[in-house]
Amino acid sequence: MNFRYQTKEMDKIWKEENRFRYFLKVEKAIAATQAELGIIPKEAYQYIKKAKYKLKEVEEFEKITGHDVIAFVQSLEKSIPKYSEYIHFGLTSYDIVDTALALRCQETCCIILDSLANLKETIKELALRYKDTPMMGRTHGVHAEPITFGLKCLSWYTEIERGIKRIERAKKEISFGKISGAVGSFSQLSVAVEEKTLKRLGLEPEPVSTQVLPRDRIAELISVMAITATSLERITTEIRNLQRTEIGEVAEPFFAGQKGSSAMPHKKNPILCERICSLAKIIRAQIIPSLENIPLWHERDLTNSAAERIILPLTFNLLHYSILTLNKILKNLAVFPEKMKENIRESKEQFYSQTLLLYLIRKGLKRSYAYEMVQRLSFKAIEEEKDLSKVVKEDKEIKRYLKQKEIKEIFSLKNLLRNVDSIFKRVLSEEVKND
Amino acid sequence: MNFRYQTKEMDKIWKEENRFRYFLKVEKAIAATQAELGIIPKEAYQYIKKAKYKLKEVEEFEKITGHDVIAFVQSLEKSIPKYSEYIHFGLTSYDIVDTALALRCQETCCIILDSLANLKETIKELALRYKDTPMMGRTHGVHAEPITFGLKCLSWYTEIERGIKRIERAKKEISFGKISGAVGSFSQLSVAVEEKTLKRLGLEPEPVSTQVLPRDRIAELISVMAITATSLERITTEIRNLQRTEIGEVAEPFFAGQKGSSAMPHKKNPILCERICSLAKIIRAQIIPSLENIPLWHERDLTNSAAERIILPLTFNLLHYSILTLNKILKNLAVFPEKMKENIRESKEQFYSQTLLLYLIRKGLKRSYAYEMVQRLSFKAIEEEKDLSKVVKEDKEIKRYLKQKEIKEIFSLKNLLRNVDSIFKRVLSEEVKND
Amino acid sequence: MNFRYQTKEMDKIWKEENRFRYFLKVEKAIAATQAELGIIPKEAYQYIKKAKYKLKEVEEFEKITGHDVIAFVQSLEKSIPKYSEYIHFGLTSYDIVDTALALRCQETCCIILDSLANLKETIKELALRYKDTPMMGRTHGVHAEPITFGLKCLSWYTEIERGIKRIERAKKEISFGKISGAVGSFSQLSVAVEEKTLKRLGLEPEPVSTQVLPRDRIAELISVMAITATSLERITTEIRNLQRTEIGEVAEPFFAGQKGSSAMPHKKNPILCERICSLAKIIRAQIIPSLENIPLWHERDLTNSAAERIILPLTFNLLHYSILTLNKILKNLAVFPEKMKENIRESKEQFYSQTLLLYLIRKGLKRSYAYEMVQRLSFKAIEEEKDLSKVVKEDKEIKRYLKQKEIKEIFSLKNLLRNVDSIFKRVLSEEVKND
Amino acid sequence: MNFRYQTKEMDKIWKEENRFRYFLKVEKAIAATQAELGIIPKEAYQYIKKAKYKLKEVEEFEKITGHDVIAFVQSLEKSIPKYSEYIHFGLTSYDIVDTALALRCQETCCIILDSLANLKETIKELALRYKDTPMMGRTHGVHAEPITFGLKCLSWYTEIERGIKRIERAKKEISFGKISGAVGSFSQLSVAVEEKTLKRLGLEPEPVSTQVLPRDRIAELISVMAITATSLERITTEIRNLQRTEIGEVAEPFFAGQKGSSAMPHKKNPILCERICSLAKIIRAQIIPSLENIPLWHERDLTNSAAERIILPLTFNLLHYSILTLNKILKNLAVFPEKMKENIRESKEQFYSQTLLLYLIRKGLKRSYAYEMVQRLSFKAIEEEKDLSKVVKEDKEIKRYLKQKEIKEIFSLKNLLRNVDSIFKRVLSEEVKND
Repeated sequence: MNFRYQTKEMDKIWKEENRFRYFLKVEKAIAATQAELGIIPKEAYQYIKKAKYKLKEVEEFEKITGHDVIAFVQSLEKSIPKYSEYIHFGLTSYDIVDTALALRCQETCCIILDSLANLKETIKELALRYKDTPMMGRTHGVHAEPITFGLKCLSWYTEIERGIKRIERAKKEISFGKISGAVGSFSQLSVAVEEKTLKRLGLEPEPVSTQVLPRDRIAELISVMAITATSLERITTEIRNLQRTEIGEVAEPFFAGQKGSSAMPHKKNPILCERICSLAKIIRAQIIPSLENIPLWHERDLTNSAAERIILPLTFNLLHYSILTLNKILKNLAVFPEKMKENIRESKEQFYSQTLLLYLIRKGLKRSYAYEMVQRLSFKAIEEEKDLSKVVKEDKEIKRYLKQKEIKEIFSLKNLLRNVDSIFKRVLSEEVKND
Repeated sequence: MNFRYQTKEMDKIWKEENRFRYFLKVEKAIAATQAELGIIPKEAYQYIKKAKYKLKEVEEFEKITGHDVIAFVQSLEKSIPKYSEYIHFGLTSYDIVDTALALRCQETCCIILDSLANLKETIKELALRYKDTPMMGRTHGVHAEPITFGLKCLSWYTEIERGIKRIERAKKEISFGKISGAVGSFSQLSVAVEEKTLKRLGLEPEPVSTQVLPRDRIAELISVMAITATSLERITTEIRNLQRTEIGEVAEPFFAGQKGSSAMPHKKNPILCERICSLAKIIRAQIIPSLENIPLWHERDLTNSAAERIILPLTFNLLHYSILTLNKILKNLAVFPEKMKENIRESKEQFYSQTLLLYLIRKGLKRSYAYEMVQRLSFKAIEEEKDLSKVVKEDKEIKRYLKQKEIKEIFSLKNLLRNVDSIFKRVLSEEVKND
Repeated sequence: MNFRYQTKEMDKIWKEENRFRYFLKVEKAIAATQAELGIIPKEAYQYIKKAKYKLKEVEEFEKITGHDVIAFVQSLEKSIPKYSEYIHFGLTSYDIVDTALALRCQETCCIILDSLANLKETIKELALRYKDTPMMGRTHGVHAEPITFGLKCLSWYTEIERGIKRIERAKKEISFGKISGAVGSFSQLSVAVEEKTLKRLGLEPEPVSTQVLPRDRIAELISVMAITATSLERITTEIRNLQRTEIGEVAEPFFAGQKGSSAMPHKKNPILCERICSLAKIIRAQIIPSLENIPLWHERDLTNSAAERIILPLTFNLLHYSILTLNKILKNLAVFPEKMKENIRESKEQFYSQTLLLYLIRKGLKRSYAYEMVQRLSFKAIEEEKDLSKVVKEDKEIKRYLKQKEIKEIFSLKNLLRNVDSIFKRVLSEEVKND
Repeated sequence: MNFRYQTKEMDKIWKEENRFRYFLKVEKAIAATQAELGIIPKEAYQYIKKAKYKLKEVEEFEKITGHDVIAFVQSLEKSIPKYSEYIHFGLTSYDIVDTALALRCQETCCIILDSLANLKETIKELALRYKDTPMMGRTHGVHAEPITFGLKCLSWYTEIERGIKRIERAKKEISFGKISGAVGSFSQLSVAVEEKTLKRLGLEPEPVSTQVLPRDRIAELISVMAITATSLERITTEIRNLQRTEIGEVAEPFFAGQKGSSAMPHKKNPILCERICSLAKIIRAQIIPSLENIPLWHERDLTNSAAERIILPLTFNLLHYSILTLNKILKNLAVFPEKMKENIRESKEQFYSQTLLLYLIRKGLKRSYAYEMVQRLSFKAIEEEKDLSKVVKEDKEIKRYLKQKEIKEIFSLKNLLRNVDSIFKRVLSEEVKND
């Protein structure tokens, strides 16, 4: 599989031909165990551990037999002068294929986790840098109350952190191999061979396998990756929205020489963010076939196989590419605090209405009465395009309940954001302790 | 939401109108905390803790305001003579709605886990009962080597066990609430109110929320449920396949009075198994919208809401119904060990070919030479419709390598299944220790 | 199935119990044909055409037999004093169930098409009303070139029109019934009975059926509905984006008494648009199980059945509800042409850069040279927050190529929008002919 | 994009670098029109029509600009000595990209349709060859009534035929281009340029475009391809089921040299059928992102782009590969009519029970009475492992209603299959007329 948006780390694992590297690792680990247990001659292992395959040869053999593992074993056999009959001894193809798959998935998780750790660090820095930078909070696309840009980043931070934990768990759950034969009954080998071999490879033995490993493990892995891919979509959708011409609060970095549009030279578009959103759709879509792969017939059928050859490289490459790209974006993100302030001002203090409402209730007013009064003032301020505090100060009815000093207290941005520090402390206790 | 395949346990939680019971729980817990912290008068809580809503009233109010939480609060307010303004004090609707949602999901997980524990127990009994009952193992729908029916059940057992662990983890991850206001900044209340209240309710505080809880938690919950639903599909597809007329090894129970077909009175169809397969498709499909709900705009938009009102009741009801139904099927499953043996016999010992192959290799033959010899004998046996051992005994070439006694050893079913006990021991160490 | 967002029209067809009305229609049409062809006594039909079912009775019988069609037939039988044995004569259940399903889907399409015709008309009016109202066109969320609001609506109009054509085609493709017996071989009846009966019912005969109708027809129906649902999502996402506080060009109608937020009385949120977006996710997700229903085993299995009982009512109700709701929104949409103009002005004429570029090329400049000059001027204008025409007029380099009069010609909004009429004419030739 | 299961025909269209061939076609067609209309100098077209791109050059330029169309145009410009500024004159990138996409999709449809026509022909031959070959019909995996193998094939035939019609319609719907500029308003060019150019290219003009073509057209194309892919899954699942060891009625061809299993030399597995089933899952999954691509923001965002670069080549390659492979399988399918007969015999005439039932009703018995009698006899026959006719002949109760001659008439296979010819005639009127 070869397509745009690949990363070289994933290519090393998932390029079709690279699976043979992992096959070889498994074959050798089994031979080592078999020699240790006296199943094959000790001397045989001395030869097998030096066995090699030639890619061209494997491909030629596969054309004849139509079976990749047989072709691979034939190539190995040709590479050693003696004992070749003890290669792949007592095994079924999927002892090799699926155990190799577990190794590849395990390694994939390590790389994805590394890239997520970097991303998390980048986001933490953003969050801390802009902890106290006020910006408008928006619900339904409409101004609500101010937050800080750091707080927004902090919510990304915790979401990525959850993603990391999920992938760590899924990594553990995918690190299971099997060397249990054609139907999982150990008809030729034994539980001991499996356990010793997998230990050598850093894997756990699947408690009960069929010819293959159970596919719910892969479905779980793809699920958690899809959740993380969609979390990236949340972050990049946010940047795209904040980069709108009318909002202009952040901007994806624009590199020298880059051209935005063949028609409109002035445009700076969040195209990398859009790409990550686009790839998230593809990654998500892999879950359905991953799940459909679970109910294989009896001790296995082959309907998972071709699908997995697409699902796995696609998901892992696209997710890894997306993480690296988002990290690059966020490391260079342009942030415009002045524009954020300006946008807050545009809202003409409407966001203080709840504070006002509660203040009135604390003064003893009925909720519904207070609600309607605040709504009336709020709509009036909008209509007259005035700051809400101004309308409040001028209103006769509300004057009966509030003093000027109290109004000032109500309409305070600092007051509104007073708890941001506490939120940061519970997430990043160390970094903000002495703040 | 009301549809076939509901269970009364899920109905209690997920029927639209029942959400108000959870809203009330949350409102009261908050009022208790607020009274404790002096935010509202202590006496107010004495009234609020007795507040009630009337369903009809809520519905009427909702028609006017178009907002269910406001309508609910209005109904509560009417139920107490004093202090009604301190109900829902300083809150945003989603402090209530989402915290209530967490409670409902948490309770749902408990019920699903209970039903899965029962199912697991039923499967364990099946596995132990048929531990030593030989049946044909099949790959690609074609006879491979014998296994035992108990071993097949044991693989279901471990898959359900993994499902349970996933749901337990997801339950922990869904047990987070939020009382952080309109944009998650605690503009009206405080981190302390949230933490104390959620502790009262048995929930953790979401480290950083927006107006709502982050939706990746729900996506995870639906994912793990979809994996388990598809594991049920694996089991029921297996039963359907084994119940085929030509195979006839097991049968779904057929209850007195039940009619199989309006046209064909003799038919016994695995309709419950088919239903579980059918429902698994629906449950799986819920993952995509659950994921699409993650990238809400800014501090939230409402595009998750209507979808969740369908996804959640649908998934939870259908999964619970499927688990209960499968448990009923497996508790009463008809198993036909004689037919299993007969089917093994039909295979005419072809499944011993690998044992034969390895024996020949151990004797010093080259793998490829041995493979071709065994393949030749195997195809000959098929053509002549003879048992493989008979063809082997008659073959001149193979006689050069094998004695009659060795042939007997090779063609032994007991030998082929010798490791089944070891597999059981590593899964159910206690139950099979003294076996 | 009963859930929020149902419409009464769909309820009449899709409420579980209402399927019996259609069953009855089919049973009677078959009996009529059978009497006509002499398969059953002519007098028998005189009785059967008066047969009725009692819902309660059917439900009770179903509890015993576990089979809804048998229960339904039993209830019919009880309702007539003679000839009851000729009810359901020679049929298999699915002759009734699937032919009734075709009738229900056909009727559903009519209702959906009606509602879409209304929606199309509403959009046409919007398009014509705002044909010449300039607004900013945006790509990547960033200002591009002006369009008119009418043109935007016109693109919705043609998309809905395509949706209508697709549903019309799917309606034709779903209007196929079958009365071909247990395995589609007409073992008890004949091709003639099927053809005559279906003609009576306004359906075509399925050329080759099994026990059931082929499920690719339903998959097609759900697909086209999902496409239309997502077209609605496109329109409502657009409104949500245009209603953002910073953009403010349109607004979803806000009805008297409605409350926007329990915390923020001033907010006007596009909640109906958000709801339509939310429901589109659910509708889309139905395609996957609809497709998974196609590969039934042999002459049918039952794994489509339970899924369809959910997919069909869900899809049809949600889509119908969404269409009706969007029609209501668009009929009352608030449009703010002044704000549109203001937003255009904010872009400081950047959008004329391509016109400028081409003008320079026509003057004989090399594309790359011209592109870089325009980009430079464009970035300068942004930096200095000036209108592009002003920067152009002041620039020495460009003066060498352009006269003042030409600059005026380049920077003309009217010129930019000169082709809008032609677009309208090719879509709505009649309405804009004499414009 | 490069992966297993590609076909060379699709590669020609969909390999990333091949898109430039189509870009060039579009650029030249536009230049021709522009020269004709006097928008660019006539002589300029004489140069442009000879313009060429160098792939390496394009790739290098793209690395600098990050924009493939600009890079492509730069390479074209370098290839002609004069008039290069009139290349891409007045265009926006997507005038080229999306019109080229329409050409590629159109060509794809032609190839897919060709391969489907071949497949349809192959299936027709199978259907006619086995028109009168009886085999058991099965519902719920359980024996129902006999059909013929030809009839089963005929149902595949009509399903493929429906698939062809759907793709033909989708082909028409995808054959729309756009040359309407950056926001679809023809700000630089005109409706006339678009219409004339597209006519040259064999495309229709999109009535209203934005910067891009509306994505519902692509969603429709992918939908119909997914339906056909799943129809292939229905056929191959059927073959897999019929090839089960216990059923053995058909077999996927097994080619010389091919090895079935590294462990079990005797096995013949339906691996190509399994592969087609596997790929169908992947194709199906592409619908969701195709739909998600419809609601682009405003006059377009880029979130469809990266996804389409994967969805389109993947879907088209895998579907084309699957069709070619299935055709190969069916052309060489092994069919075992003797085994089919044997399986019918195994059912011990149970399938005559409905004929018996109706015969009794025609004799004047009440349906419920007759049903219970037949069910009793049917269960008795099963228990005693006797043919149903034998049990019937021995039964005292039924003797009161039926003569020996009548029993013979009831238990006739020829009678049961008497309508198969009529079904063939309505599908293949010419081929079976004189049969």
